[in-house]
Amino acid sequence: MSILTRPILEINLKNILDNYNLLKTIAAHSIPAAVVKDDSYGLGASIIAPMLYEKANCRNFFVAHAIEGERIVESIPQAKIFVLQGFGEDSKELFEKHKQLIPVISSPEMFAYWKEARPDTRKPVIHIETGLNRLGFREKDLAKLSESDLQEFQMVMSHLACGDEKEHFMNTHQLENFDALKNLYFPDLPASLSASDGVFLGENFQWNMVRLGAAMYGINTAPYRKNQMKNVVKIKAPVLEIADLPKGEFVGYSATYRASSDRKIAIISIGYGDGIPRSLSNVGKVYFQVRGKLQEGRVIGRMSMDNMICDVTTVDGLEVGDMALITDDFYTLDDMGRDAGTISYEIMSRVGKNTRYIRKYIEE
Amino acid sequence: MSILTRPILEINLKNILDNYNLLKTIAAHSIPAAVVKDDSYGLGASIIAPMLYEKANCRNFFVAHAIEGERIVESIPQAKIFVLQGFGEDSKELFEKHKQLIPVISSPEMFAYWKEARPDTRKPVIHIETGLNRLGFREKDLAKLSESDLQEFQMVMSHLACGDEKEHFMNTHQLENFDALKNLYFPDLPASLSASDGVFLGENFQWNMVRLGAAMYGINTAPYRKNQMKNVVKIKAPVLEIADLPKGEFVGYSATYRASSDRKIAIISIGYGDGIPRSLSNVGKVYFQVRGKLQEGRVIGRMSMDNMICDVTTVDGLEVGDMALITDDFYTLDDMGRDAGTISYEIMSRVGKNTRYIRKYIEE
Repeated sequence: MSILTRPILEINLKNILDNYNLLKTIAAHSIPAAVVKDDSYGLGASIIAPMLYEKANCRNFFVAHAIEGERIVESIPQAKIFVLQGFGEDSKELFEKHKQLIPVISSPEMFAYWKEARPDTRKPVIHIETGLNRLGFREKDLAKLSESDLQEFQMVMSHLACGDEKEHFMNTHQLENFDALKNLYFPDLPASLSASDGVFLGENFQWNMVRLGAAMYGINTAPYRKNQMKNVVKIKAPVLEIADLPKGEFVGYSATYRASSDRKIAIISIGYGDGIPRSLSNVGKVYFQVRGKLQEGRVIGRMSMDNMICDVTTVDGLEVGDMALITDDFYTLDDMGRDAGTISYEIMSRVGKNTRYIRKYIEE
Repeated sequence: MSILTRPILEINLKNILDNYNLLKTIAAHSIPAAVVKDDSYGLGASIIAPMLYEKANCRNFFVAHAIEGERIVESIPQAKIFVLQGFGEDSKELFEKHKQLIPVISSPEMFAYWKEARPDTRKPVIHIETGLNRLGFREKDLAKLSESDLQEFQMVMSHLACGDEKEHFMNTHQLENFDALKNLYFPDLPASLSASDGVFLGENFQWNMVRLGAAMYGINTAPYRKNQMKNVVKIKAPVLEIADLPKGEFVGYSATYRASSDRKIAIISIGYGDGIPRSLSNVGKVYFQVRGKLQEGRVIGRMSMDNMICDVTTVDGLEVGDMALITDDFYTLDDMGRDAGTISYEIMSRVGKNTRYIRKYIEE
């Protein structure tokens, strides 16, 4: 019997690379860019960006904030790093320092500030709004740009609202808007419309550059069919204790679970402090590979910061020190997101930032 | 008009210190210990632990994992650091290296491993189960301990399930269990039953050591009355863009919001990638201090990783570059937790681990 205390986070770099390469072949006529914002969705941009640079010859990267670009700029020296949140007083110095950073300009105000404070003649990207109603120049803003303003940019981009729903009317609506605005204002510029989800909508959505993020990290961005991507994240956590739970006893904070019969419980050394959603309280599933069988337990009671409590009454042969499988190839972050009432993106973004995991990068 | 892009996280160290000192006076006959697990709920244990050590003479700290203890051990050289998740093969080396780390032993299996592998004669804490049905020796486990086993420990502890509900039957139930088990097995040992919530239940819940965590960080652990603690966390994020939203248009991913009249929207540079719960989509509130008035906006559509979209139709005088108040003294993480369908603990634990914030520690 082994006694372990820490959870384990496995990040499969090989599968990220394979996913990236598969996405490249699906968008074979576009330039691939890797989205490594939010520290590569928490998985570690300082490891993933240089891997894609070296092993897949990736030369275009997207981050949200300039500070995220600064953290990887030296490891990808010949690459462009596009900064989605753009250029501001709080990032001006970073743009001065690093010529590789390319701001994405999304409003007339930001563009005015760019023209006043820009460090040199590098050309930004312009983000135009086509239906998401998030960041981007609206048509009336575009109409106010002068002829020389329109020459200031190196690429035009937009972003899909419903790219993960193949038949959603919004997709063609945005595509038509993008096509019209691009032809009217930026007929000669390269264009980028789609992130991972848009890549699967077909070649007319792929334009000149595709922004590969979620799918590269294994998320199913085309949930209307089986995931073509390889799973990237596995989480395990040790069983710290196994105990009898007599009928009538309560479990966890606020006593939200009461045993209706005698049960067996396991205390697992992982909780919301490790990024696992607390909304899995009383609904989540946990798996155990013991006695040669994959067996299922159930989260009971409220999840705590450091632990969760599982009903393991039907799990045969479980011992203290065995590892609970929290996510795996057969129960992915997408599955967990569905059970937790959120999306895998949010869980991934949280999990990876926690420093209590024994973190393992799988390279082969 | 200023143009900013990054969100700001303000952590008020002075208020943490004041909260700690107030909690000390409420539990005046107990030894105070500071709970700094999960990187001080994400707020930065490497700053908060030494502050409490130096300015409040705190000499007892609780972490979840030994690795968390290692990160602060040199900054609090004369303190004891109790490790709640205990002693295992994956933490043995850290316990050998740092004599200040004191394991909390919570199962017979862990105790057996401790006796086999312990680095020296330091005495651990024993965690006993009194009603939470999480970690801890059950009574039948205690009954099996030999006379000499019972001498192996320096303190006995347990943990309340419902300490934040003053009249919950579980409180007296656990108090009676704790009292009985302690008197039977550990009559001469100091005892610790309560975290912040139990401190407010009265002196009979305070025993010899109280574990001050959530309340110290400003969370209301006695929600049946007005919070006596000072607020610790303020989050601000810049307005990146303001736009008209014509009647009938959709907002955000999956087009979950549709404008039933002409609206004005603001795009705020913060999202779930910064630890803000995605469950605030279409329900969250955001505040703006403009034109000398505190004005309220509403999150509409799905929150994204880097941005959220707010209805600011009724906000008078808002400009690009103004800061949205995401949490503040008047809308705390407790309030946000309620709106997001979770608890402040979970949000705090996420927010602080994000490195995109401009992080400010307020000392005065």
